[in-house]
Amino acid sequence: MKKLINHPDDFVRESLEGMAVAHSDLIKVHFEPNFIYRTDVPVPNKVALISGGGSGHEPLHGGFVGMGMLDAACPGEIFTSPTPDQMLEAAKVVSSGAGILNIVKNYSGDVMNFELAAELALSEGMRVLNILIDDDVAVQDSLYTQGRRGVGTTVLAEKICGAAAERGYELKQLAHLCRQVNINGRSMGIALTSCTPPAKGSLMFELGEKEIEMGIGIHGEPGRKRMPLRSADEITEMLALSIIEDAAYTRTLREWDEEKEEWVEIEIIDLPFKKGDRVLAFVNSMGGTPLSELYIIYRKLAQICEQKGLQIVRSLIGPYITSLEMQGCSITLLKLNDELIKLWDAPVKTPALRWGI
Amino acid sequence: MKKLINHPDDFVRESLEGMAVAHSDLIKVHFEPNFIYRTDVPVPNKVALISGGGSGHEPLHGGFVGMGMLDAACPGEIFTSPTPDQMLEAAKVVSSGAGILNIVKNYSGDVMNFELAAELALSEGMRVLNILIDDDVAVQDSLYTQGRRGVGTTVLAEKICGAAAERGYELKQLAHLCRQVNINGRSMGIALTSCTPPAKGSLMFELGEKEIEMGIGIHGEPGRKRMPLRSADEITEMLALSIIEDAAYTRTLREWDEEKEEWVEIEIIDLPFKKGDRVLAFVNSMGGTPLSELYIIYRKLAQICEQKGLQIVRSLIGPYITSLEMQGCSITLLKLNDELIKLWDAPVKTPALRWGI
Repeated sequence: MKKLINHPDDFVRESLEGMAVAHSDLIKVHFEPNFIYRTDVPVPNKVALISGGGSGHEPLHGGFVGMGMLDAACPGEIFTSPTPDQMLEAAKVVSSGAGILNIVKNYSGDVMNFELAAELALSEGMRVLNILIDDDVAVQDSLYTQGRRGVGTTVLAEKICGAAAERGYELKQLAHLCRQVNINGRSMGIALTSCTPPAKGSLMFELGEKEIEMGIGIHGEPGRKRMPLRSADEITEMLALSIIEDAAYTRTLREWDEEKEEWVEIEIIDLPFKKGDRVLAFVNSMGGTPLSELYIIYRKLAQICEQKGLQIVRSLIGPYITSLEMQGCSITLLKLNDELIKLWDAPVKTPALRWGI
Repeated sequence: MKKLINHPDDFVRESLEGMAVAHSDLIKVHFEPNFIYRTDVPVPNKVALISGGGSGHEPLHGGFVGMGMLDAACPGEIFTSPTPDQMLEAAKVVSSGAGILNIVKNYSGDVMNFELAAELALSEGMRVLNILIDDDVAVQDSLYTQGRRGVGTTVLAEKICGAAAERGYELKQLAHLCRQVNINGRSMGIALTSCTPPAKGSLMFELGEKEIEMGIGIHGEPGRKRMPLRSADEITEMLALSIIEDAAYTRTLREWDEEKEEWVEIEIIDLPFKKGDRVLAFVNSMGGTPLSELYIIYRKLAQICEQKGLQIVRSLIGPYITSLEMQGCSITLLKLNDELIKLWDAPVKTPALRWGI
């Protein structure tokens, strides 16, 4: 295993320590339990946004803590869900009294622990809502997931909801907005190589020398199929058409009902893209793929969107939701409206995403 | 070769096409000859900044074109110097009449071609100065270089001089500033893995399974030595101490003398860091190393700087000057003063670096 690490057991802690000293103007890190939080929390009268998940996807989520995005992020061990005590302690630190929105990627461990954390926070008198992101069109019922996995749309939801919280959206409005982002975002990824979790010390999965995994999950979960390496244009077409042409997907997701005071199943339908839609096009590196290749993917994606009548009005290109050093990429398309565009463009100041300030 | 590409011959062009459509609000791309330029050039009364070099180091340089940084960037083929005609055509497009500063990494091909381009531009009546960056303390007289190679300090010079040009520094002031950045910046890198240039189709060099190259060049040039993989802390210490403890380095670099109208040799001495210095700490990924590992490096670097009495007042962490998908990192320390800090903090809006706007 060739990595710039000391001991695998210290990987997450030392990486967080590095973040803390590098970005002390923006964030602080609390250890045991681990969470990253804005230096200026609680922000008076603002709904606090919390996310989290296994480490190994950096900059997600810790790199998105700061003005205009998350109030706190809870990192688990590599590819391992964070625990409810992390989320509860983070909630206590960032809570202004205006409520807490947990943005949760749809992995069973994350969902369960964020539900437990929400119940603990509720019992301490906080208002908390959890919204799930399940945007990965590749497969349903994966290794660690019921239904679709949550991937690239999470980054966009954190940015958009972060801006909305900053502008005074109250908790229910914000939960609604986050749900809308999820409904309008779709993703799919591909792996050229595997990656090596430090504690495992060996490849997470094996891929043949000329083989790729179409529809890969960010923890190496199997995708739709393995196939021989194709050209960038063919790969982009497979990803983009899977995203654009997928039929409407109806599923139920669990959310907390504040009136009934219980978890309820909400029916969510993601509507397929249609001609004339304005979209944000997000081409993401899995970690080990250089920017030059992402632009080759973006080039073809832009052509396909044009053919399909989708107008790309915003874009994001780079490593934002990664799988350690895995080579590969994912594409996310998010249908935008005027509100989402305004929120996307709003100022943000985090370690990994910054503009307007 | 596993890459997200179509044909190796189309790699650079297609990547540039992707950049152009992705960032049409900031940049345009001219093809044959290839260069990337700001949409709003020529910027009246502003000295124009141009840089360039082989492709494969993205986002350097094209990703740094925009308000507050470069006016144009000339990308060569992968790891191959751009040609004088690219530089000349770029100069014609961005020239406002206030002069042109070429920021040139010290590789023989780049130096020669930027000198030729400067002479061509001079003969067309433009004022042009070239400043070389040669900050890599690892080795002298490398595969493609006389003296020290130019690496990470280039990114910082482009940002700082870009801000200064925006504020109205005239050409000679700007050349002086760029020289000062070079004198005060030092870098060194390490490779855990090699990388595969698309046209070659095979690894640029071979590294054993547990072997690293200390002092690697960004084109895979040999460094100081090969050694068994060490811990992140040991590697950071070797890089940081090489940078901090290196003796003063005196060399002559060629610059254009406007009065004499000829190339002259300028003696340049880089002064070692000393206790109390304020520095910018830049931890750079070679392309394939994830952010989480960069933070582990940064953590130790911050400790070493503290022990050495260096005060880190600004930082930059991420993939900014890369070697395709190479795993590894480099460290750059730049001594700052109030002027440099103000220029570093000034607004910038480019595809790869953006803040304050």
